[in-house]
Order: sequence, then structure tokens, then C-alpha cells
Amino acid sequence: MKIRKLASASQAFNYPLLIKSILAYSTKIEPEREIVYRDLIRYNYFTLTKRVNKLANVLESLEIDGAQTIAVLDYDSHRYLECFFAIPMTGNVLHTINWRLSAAQILYTINHAEDTLIICHADFLPLLESMAQEMTTVKGIIVCTDEPSYKSNNTLTVYGEYESLLAKVSDEFDFPDFDENAVATTFYTTGTTGNPKGVYFTHRQLVLHTLSICFTFSTIDGACRFNNSDVYMPLTPMFHVHAWGFPYVATLSGAKQVYIGKFEPESVLKFFMKEQPTFSHCVPTILQMFVSHPATQNIDLSKWKVVIGGSALPKPLAKAALLRGVDVITGYGMSETCPIVSTVYVSPEEQQNLDIDFQVEARTRTGTPSAFVDIRLVDEQGNTIAHNGEDVGEITLRTPWLTQGYFKEADKSEDLWRDGWLHTGDVASMNKDNSLKICDRIKDVIKSGGEWVSSIELENMIGLHEAVQEVAVVSIPDAKWGERPHALIVTKDGKAISKESLHAHMKQFVDAGKITPWTVPASVNFTLVIPKTSVGKIDKKAIRASIDTV
Amino acid sequence: MKIRKLASASQAFNYPLLIKSILAYSTKIEPEREIVYRDLIRYNYFTLTKRVNKLANVLESLEIDGAQTIAVLDYDSHRYLECFFAIPMTGNVLHTINWRLSAAQILYTINHAEDTLIICHADFLPLLESMAQEMTTVKGIIVCTDEPSYKSNNTLTVYGEYESLLAKVSDEFDFPDFDENAVATTFYTTGTTGNPKGVYFTHRQLVLHTLSICFTFSTIDGACRFNNSDVYMPLTPMFHVHAWGFPYVATLSGAKQVYIGKFEPESVLKFFMKEQPTFSHCVPTILQMFVSHPATQNIDLSKWKVVIGGSALPKPLAKAALLRGVDVITGYGMSETCPIVSTVYVSPEEQQNLDIDFQVEARTRTGTPSAFVDIRLVDEQGNTIAHNGEDVGEITLRTPWLTQGYFKEADKSEDLWRDGWLHTGDVASMNKDNSLKICDRIKDVIKSGGEWVSSIELENMIGLHEAVQEVAVVSIPDAKWGERPHALIVTKDGKAISKESLHAHMKQFVDAGKITPWTVPASVNFTLVIPKTSVGKIDKKAIRASIDTV
Repeated sequence: MKIRKLASASQAFNYPLLIKSILAYSTKIEPEREIVYRDLIRYNYFTLTKRVNKLANVLESLEIDGAQTIAVLDYDSHRYLECFFAIPMTGNVLHTINWRLSAAQILYTINHAEDTLIICHADFLPLLESMAQEMTTVKGIIVCTDEPSYKSNNTLTVYGEYESLLAKVSDEFDFPDFDENAVATTFYTTGTTGNPKGVYFTHRQLVLHTLSICFTFSTIDGACRFNNSDVYMPLTPMFHVHAWGFPYVATLSGAKQVYIGKFEPESVLKFFMKEQPTFSHCVPTILQMFVSHPATQNIDLSKWKVVIGGSALPKPLAKAALLRGVDVITGYGMSETCPIVSTVYVSPEEQQNLDIDFQVEARTRTGTPSAFVDIRLVDEQGNTIAHNGEDVGEITLRTPWLTQGYFKEADKSEDLWRDGWLHTGDVASMNKDNSLKICDRIKDVIKSGGEWVSSIELENMIGLHEAVQEVAVVSIPDAKWGERPHALIVTKDGKAISKESLHAHMKQFVDAGKITPWTVPASVNFTLVIPKTSVGKIDKKAIRASIDTV
Repeated sequence: MKIRKLASASQAFNYPLLIKSILAYSTKIEPEREIVYRDLIRYNYFTLTKRVNKLANVLESLEIDGAQTIAVLDYDSHRYLECFFAIPMTGNVLHTINWRLSAAQILYTINHAEDTLIICHADFLPLLESMAQEMTTVKGIIVCTDEPSYKSNNTLTVYGEYESLLAKVSDEFDFPDFDENAVATTFYTTGTTGNPKGVYFTHRQLVLHTLSICFTFSTIDGACRFNNSDVYMPLTPMFHVHAWGFPYVATLSGAKQVYIGKFEPESVLKFFMKEQPTFSHCVPTILQMFVSHPATQNIDLSKWKVVIGGSALPKPLAKAALLRGVDVITGYGMSETCPIVSTVYVSPEEQQNLDIDFQVEARTRTGTPSAFVDIRLVDEQGNTIAHNGEDVGEITLRTPWLTQGYFKEADKSEDLWRDGWLHTGDVASMNKDNSLKICDRIKDVIKSGGEWVSSIELENMIGLHEAVQEVAVVSIPDAKWGERPHALIVTKDGKAISKESLHAHMKQFVDAGKITPWTVPASVNFTLVIPKTSVGKIDKKAIRASIDTV
């Protein structure tokens, strides 16, 4: 197909999509709204802008003049927000370090990302000092602290304390325009195998992701809407996929923002009551704390909107939150996707439905893809799967805000983007209403008799047996079926369940047409503990390995 | 400043911003919402998509295979909306013809734009037939009609009637991806001198303009907000700068849309009552009709949000509309700017203020620039003017959605973009709250004694004299001051006002420091009629010319 392109006037300005435009707008609409850090700091958007300018001057004074990677190792803070802007706006790359990784993994990511500077909270200084000799690219550290002083043992070059450095420099900085495809951020995703992998996002990608969130959460009249009169308080770490992109949304629109520092339930509840946030995002565990912690029982949660991600929102928790008046929905995304790909849409009519169980079902869906998100579900041969709510396939994606590869991992980058679509490794179905339902990770799916069987669905079915406390299902090779499921079960009384009892229990699902007879686990082990990963997920790789050695 | 760019995986998809993504999303959230055309057509977003596919197949069958310009000459209609998508999505360029131009100007724009096909309402066929011999590039016509038949005199090649052509082709079409910088639309702007000038916008520009409107009207908690539960009814012609971009916003979000066809007050009011629109945009004259027409006195306007543009919203009209409960604000833009550059922001606190005069003042401001809009006010030497609410300068702009030139007008393109900023020709001040106030067109400003004096402000002052019915102020050369103002006055009784009386009247403004003594018009003519342009604006060029010949 032919298209027409026209030459521009010689001086016409080809406006790049840069993060600096997000900050620039923060002082235009509601500049007096506040950015709050714990009970320690409280300033407006004019001050944010001046402090970002100051941080840029500090970087320049350290001869960090673009194209360098600067890591941040801090809790959620106003400083972190400043780094979200000053580092990419100076042409540098912001590396948000996941302090939940092991020390060895953190060291790996610092060296692999080629960090030259680390902006580090004093709490993490001992960690960095312990690995000082092995850091290959870091030239120095800026220390952040809320205390009058901090302890350092001189194994690191410390340029100074963040506030002291900012105090010395001008609060003006003229940020230049540059190519919108410049890399702005990077961070690492950990699979169950191999080293962490670095994803990266450009200025253009982050601007478009920001505008996409504004469209999804404001223009679409769904549940859990955001506008700039909301008070935003993130409850996921800012290192975690740009805090899902919301700090950029809140800053662009000029909403009040509240950052809680180190997560301690008591102080979080104190800040919650004082600042009265209306919009947050978190993993289910944090929501659980808010809903069930005795100290929250007298707190009004009915003006609080919460987006849940990271793992599936359990229905009992959704119900408990809804009963407290929380406007909760789930979203879906991953490190490779910036992250937001889909969010639950509850239509105006559905929002009027007062049946609590209806609302629980509606709000725990995986969600509807955002605008400018193309989703294709594919089988193992790469064929497209129908959107009929039943057939399942791997979610593959195209959007304007996907990592274009893994940093310095050519083979894994090619595999991620094989066939021109980003392969998420998640298996899902999509119904005719355009609502996605995630079934499993693709490596956990059991490919049996030419069909894909969700290990999670089998776990849910087995879990309904009265004697079962916890269960994990993995695949084992099978000469006839290709693969068949193997179940590892923890029983309530610690004793094995008979084969007959389990088969009788599973027969109801076979009879109902939900599974085929050959996907009833023929092989079952009983155990006292199911192996888990460091973030609490069932470690199916370890389970498969243990079977191989049986 | 250095930046870092990273290579993508070889098959990574570099997602272009294309209009097809806007249409693609229209069937995802609320696909059953309706597009309504008068009382004749009513269909949902699935049908819209199929009809866009059909129109693409019609174009393909006519061997219009991209990079060709296709003109539309229709009233606001569902067909026009289909053209907003099918024409650019096939790589072609949509030329929206302004049927308010003179026949000679319409012919000029058809030939200058190099239209190969015109999709033409039957009402305009006689016009096209009258110029058939002079159209240099048009190969044929598709006729649109709501009647069973139409009259044609065979001077034109007619491919067929729109609906009949659509009926013959498949409702499937696979729109390809292409460069987001492909031109999508073009139309002509008429100044007071010379031929109409063609502006043009790319897919990327229109997508970003769409997302910008969503941010401004949804995420910002101002007055006159839009979300996709609104019922959208444009009251400005769709040829007029993409109907200000809102058809793309309404389609992306899946809002109900109502198109009124030929503007006839009685039928418009009938459709208004039947479809109950909640969001419209129009020029002041149309709002005036809704507020003051006797037939509207029993219509509830209190759920209606209206954006006013095209010319300034008179305060008495703003007041009358507010008293009817209309949530009205003004916006600013022009053909060269896609168009939206600024809209009035009324803060949540201001919205609570029940004083009607306060609301009138708040809502008749020129507005606050949108995000990603950089405004620089400059004097004649190109120096930046302070934002202090007093100093005035020409508005120059950078945004991601400005025409990059005038089609086939290299010199005018260079002049438009001199110094790397788009020169609007509008003179304004900006206050510290980032609110713009337009004073005049730059060519009407009186440059006197080193200062810029707004001809409109002088007209307002003179207009307060009890004997004055209407007044126009233009500049005349002056040896001492460079320029001085000249006033052309229509009095209420048709008799001249004495020089002494006028000077005494103007002295109050001099004494109040609003104008300098030398900007009191020394030269005054009296007349019975002030010359106007075809769109009703004071024709200052004609007035200046008439003085020259005195």
C-alpha cells in the first residue's frame, strides 16, 4: 500500500515524546498540590521541578553527561520520584534496583547494567559495601537518608548525601530535546532459570504508556477511575516496573502524591489516615493487610480505589475488600510490558449491580486489553486461537510500550520476539466480550493428548477435595499422551488419600466435561511441604526436578 | 548531551501510531453503543467497523490504492465518520472540503489538493457539475443521498451511490501497518489575503491529538469533562479541523455519537430531545440558538456540556447558557493546530463557586495550554515576553500535532515556522496561573510608540460610548508613532459624535492607565455599515484599503 509523506518546513519542529514534557505540565494546572514523603517532607510541584533541576546539576557536576546508567536503591520516596525524571531527562538511563533480589543477583544486575552511579538509601549501604570489590562499573555512590547521619565503612566512593549535594547547586537546568527513542529506564526480571534479564524502555514508550493509562482510567467510565483530584499513594515498590507507571500519570496531571518509604504496617496506616489516599495499587497481600488488620477496622476505606496486580486477586479477598467499600479491580502486565496491558472493565450497568458475588466475579477477571494493545493467542505451532472463552493459547502482544529485547541477551531477545510478537509465557483464553482469562504459565501447562491443560485449574479441582490442604500439579512425560499431570499434595491430616477417593472426586469434573479422563493425575505424591520460590510462588521447576530423580 | 539507543530484536515490532488502532478499539469496550444519523440511521460499532471495511474495498475496487487524495463534501453524517477512518487507513489522504467557501475557492482547493475522488452529498452535485470542466485531477464522484434517487446531469463521472457501492463489496478488509508519519488528512484555511492554504496532519499527529483530548477532558478534573458514557453530538461541521478531533475521541472510547446532517434548527432540536446529547462543541451562534430559541425554553439543558471555539464566547451568552445549566467552556486552536491547543480549566474549588459572574469570567478565558503544548509569546524581534498577565506577544507554538507546513507553499511554510516555532498570528498575554488571554490578530494590532495596542480592546472601549452602535479600529501609518489607530464608527442615530465627546469618553481609560494618550484614535470616520467577511468577521483589510484611497 502506498502512502504519502510530505516534507516539513525547514525549521518545523518535530516534537519528540520526552519525559520532560510530563514534568513540565505538572506546574501548569494544580502546581500547589503536594508530594508527601512519610511525615518528613511535604512540597509542591514547583519545588519538585526545582529539585529535579538540582539533581540534574548534581549529575552534571559528577560528569554524568548522558548515556550512562544510574541506579536507584531506595524505598518509595520523593527522591525516587525525582530520579524518575532527572535521570532520563539528562539523557541517562534509570536503573531501578529490586532490593528483594539476593545479594548475588543485585550485584549481577549492577554489573550487567553497567551502573556508574548508585543513589542508595543508607539502609542498603552495608549491602553495597559487602560487594564493593566486585562492582565493575560503579564509580561512586550518593547516599539518601532521613537521619542526621549514616554509617559508611569507606569501601565505597561516596560523593555525598543526596540533600547536601542538592543544596549546593542551582535549581535551574535547561533540559535539551533529543530522540524520543532514547532509553530512559531499565530493570531486571527474574525467571525461575538463569540470570536476571534486563528490560528497557524509551522516552516515547513511557509517554505513550502514561497517556494510555489516562485514557483507560479516566476516559473509560469503568470501575476504579482516576482523575487528578485523586490522592495517589503507591503501595508497590517503585523499582517494580515504574510503580506500574502511575507516578508519571500523577505528575503529568498534578495530583497529590504520597510516598511511604520503608513499608511498615503501623506507619503506613498512620499515613493513610493522615493523607487520605483515594488511589493505590498493590499486590493482594497488601490489600489483605488493609482489609483484615485489626487496626484498620475503624478506618473508612470507602473512598479508596485499588488496582491489584502481581498475582491473581483471590475471590475471598476481593469480597472482603468490596464489603469494606474498596473500589478494587485487577490489572495484568509484566516487566517486559512497561507494565499495563489489560485492566478489568466494569461497565456502568455492571457497577449498578449490588450483588456482591457478581461484583467479585466482575472485578477478578484478568481484564480487557488497553487501547493500542494487540493481543494474539497462539498455540504451539503459532496458529491463532479463537476468542471463544474456551480455547487457550499463549498471550502474544504488540503495543507501543514493550521492551524491544533483553539488554545484552541477543538469543533471549530473538526468542522473546519470535514471529514479530512478544511472547509473554502466559496462557489464556479470551471471551467474546474481549475479556482475558489467564490459565497458567506456558511452562507449567500440561500438553496432553494434543490439548493444553492448565495446571492451575487442576490444582483448583484437587484442592476442593475435603482432605487436601495444598496441591501443586506439574507435567511428567508420558509415552502415549505426550505429557500427563503429576500432583504433589499436602493433606490436612498429613496422611495419604486413597487413589479411589481422589479418582471419585475428579470424576465429577470429567463428567461435567471440564477435563478429559486422561488429565486426571495418575501419578500422585504426598508431602509435608510444597517447595516455594523466594517470592512465595510454587516452585514447579524444583518439583519437576525432584520427580526426575525419583 | 549524549543519549543511549539500543538495537531491537530483529523481529521486535515497532508499533506505529495509526488511526486504525482508534477504530480497532471501538468494538472492545462498549461495541453496542450507537452511531446515529438524524432519524434515518442507527447502528453499533461492529457495523461501523464493517462499513469502514466496505468503504476500503470500494476504494480498492476503484484502484485508489494509497497516497491519493479523496475529498468529502457532505454534511455531518455517519458516512463522514466512516471516511474519517477508511480514507486514511487505506494510506490515502482525506480532504475535508469547506462547503462554506465560494465556488471559486472550492474549485481551487479541489485542484490544489489534487483530489482524485470526491464523495459528495447530492445537495452539492450541482455545484460540482458547474465546475466539472475545470477540475483538473478528479476522476470520479461517489454520491451520498438520503433520498431514493438524485439528479445528475452527466457532466461528472459518477461511480455510483455510496450505499449501493457499499452493498456490493465484502465487509472484511485487512488494513496494513505503515509509517505513522504518513499524511492522513488535509484541508484549507482561508486568510483575508490570497488563496486558501492547505494544512495537513499525519496519523501520528491525529493519534496524539486524540490522546491529548482524553487527558485534558477526562484526567484533569475541570469543567466540561468527557467520558465514554457521554452522548456526543458535534455541532460544528466535520470539515472544520476534524470536528475539533472529537469524533476520534468518541470512537476510540466507544461513546454514543449523534450526527445531525444538514443543520436545520427545528430538526436539530428534535434530535437533541430524542438522543439527549451530553457533550457538544460549537461556535457561539449555535449556542445562542439553543439558549434563546423559543422552542428550547422547555428543554432541559442542565446535562449538556459544550466547548465553544471559532470565536470568543460573549459574556452575556456565557451567562445565559450557565443560567440554563449548560456546562460551557471555551477552547482555542486553529486550522494549523489540529486544532486543540488550550481549553479553559475551572478548578474543583472554582466549580463550587455559585456566583454566576465569577463563573462567566472563569469560563470565557482563552484557556490553559494542553499538556505537550509549548507556548512562547514573542515580540516583533522574536524576544520572549514575560508571563505576567500584562505584556502581550504573538503566540508561537510547539506541540506534536501542528501542520508541518502549507501544501505546495514553500515560502508560506517557512514563514509559518520561522525560528522553529509555529507562528499563529494571534497576540495574547499569559498570566502567572498559565491562563492565556488573546488580544488580537497580529495584523490588526496597532504598533504605536514601541507598544502593541489591541484593536479589539480599543473597540470595546469606544463601544461603551452611549452613542456608538458598532465600531472597528484599524491602524494607519503615523510619522511620529509608527502607527496610530483609526476608528470607523456606526452610531445609533446615524449622526457623527463630536471629537470632544469621544475624547472625553476615552480619557477615562487613559486616566485609568489602560491606554496611553497617543493610542486614543485621532482619526475617526462615521459610516452606516462596517464591512464584513463572508463568515461575518469585521473585514479590516477592506477598511484599511478604503482609508488608503481617501
